[in-house]
Amino acid sequence: MSSESLTSERILDTAEGVLRRHGIAKTTVVDVARALGVSHGSIYRHFPTKVSLHDAVAARWLARVADPLADIAHEDGPADERLRRWLRTLAEAKRRKVLDDPELFHTYHTLAEQARGVVDEHVRELTDQLTRIIRDGAAQGRYRVASPEAAARGVFDATVRFHHPAHSREWGHPGVDADFDVVVTMIQSALAASGAEGGERESGV
Amino acid sequence: MSSESLTSERILDTAEGVLRRHGIAKTTVVDVARALGVSHGSIYRHFPTKVSLHDAVAARWLARVADPLADIAHEDGPADERLRRWLRTLAEAKRRKVLDDPELFHTYHTLAEQARGVVDEHVRELTDQLTRIIRDGAAQGRYRVASPEAAARGVFDATVRFHHPAHSREWGHPGVDADFDVVVTMIQSALAASGAEGGERESGV
Repeated sequence: MSSESLTSERILDTAEGVLRRHGIAKTTVVDVARALGVSHGSIYRHFPTKVSLHDAVAARWLARVADPLADIAHEDGPADERLRRWLRTLAEAKRRKVLDDPELFHTYHTLAEQARGVVDEHVRELTDQLTRIIRDGAAQGRYRVASPEAAARGVFDATVRFHHPAHSREWGHPGVDADFDVVVTMIQSALAASGAEGGERESGV
Repeated sequence: MSSESLTSERILDTAEGVLRRHGIAKTTVVDVARALGVSHGSIYRHFPTKVSLHDAVAARWLARVADPLADIAHEDGPADERLRRWLRTLAEAKRRKVLDDPELFHTYHTLAEQARGVVDEHVRELTDQLTRIIRDGAAQGRYRVASPEAAARGVFDATVRFHHPAHSREWGHPGVDADFDVVVTMIQSALAASGAEGGERESGV
């Protein structure tokens, strides 16, 4: 392979294959270089350490979750429908990953646990998307919130059972879809709640 | 020790001590009998298997969380205040356990993971308590919910980040108390939301 064609994307494609076949411990710069048939020096130019390689693999995995959600966040339609679809899409993406290949899901989850900065950035990106939807809902006269940012964090936290990998074993349970609907409807009610209603208090978030 | 004084409580006290010092694997009927200086036959009359002993230890641990919450559920005051205090007390009890003795917390958590029936019963007890508070809130004219049972499950699910052991590492983070307040206030808004508000939809839960 010529060094011109050795892009970061190409390295990460190969790193994913190595990860899939051999696990985290065997996904080092040297192992990926061997799989690509190049010197490990040429990989180091893109990823100077195993940690930076692992972080990049985790970031790409998480981007595959976040990118379709960004599309929903940037639509123009009614915020209530987009919020529910955004949350459903997030939960479904996670559930599909764990049901399709539990072992690979576990491997990526472990990788992400070690890449806390990458995960924090991912959560920030997701709550930014939620903030956009909630802000649209306020502009549409549907939501009444003092702080869309705080509300977005609240929505993310309140739905953690349906998208955090620690709860993946519960996602196959019967009833989990009904549980999801109850929580999302509660969230929508809270975001829409009038500050006037109840008299003495604000809309809550 | 005479066999009369060998109550289940006494056995569980000792089993807890053995668990604390030696972990789950060494907390068997034989080990507990040895620690008590009795024959294991006399333990088997109370706990016929290691599993039944472990389940009873897990159940007692969980009861220490649930019992103070039952008191709040059975009070007569305003539901909003009781709901917030109930959730705060649950979160604080879990947080105190993990910060005081992370290793013991982890041991009990592992034990509970293996005692799914016990945990399911615990969750049922907690959601029953929440149902009582929400029903009181409806009677007080504060909450408007179609199904207090479904709402209770929703409240429990929406606060999972603050009481499920899988999230225990997050409980020491700065900001977690603020996150808790946002979610609880959202929940209270949702429970109080008028069915009339928004026109086309019910109060949500």
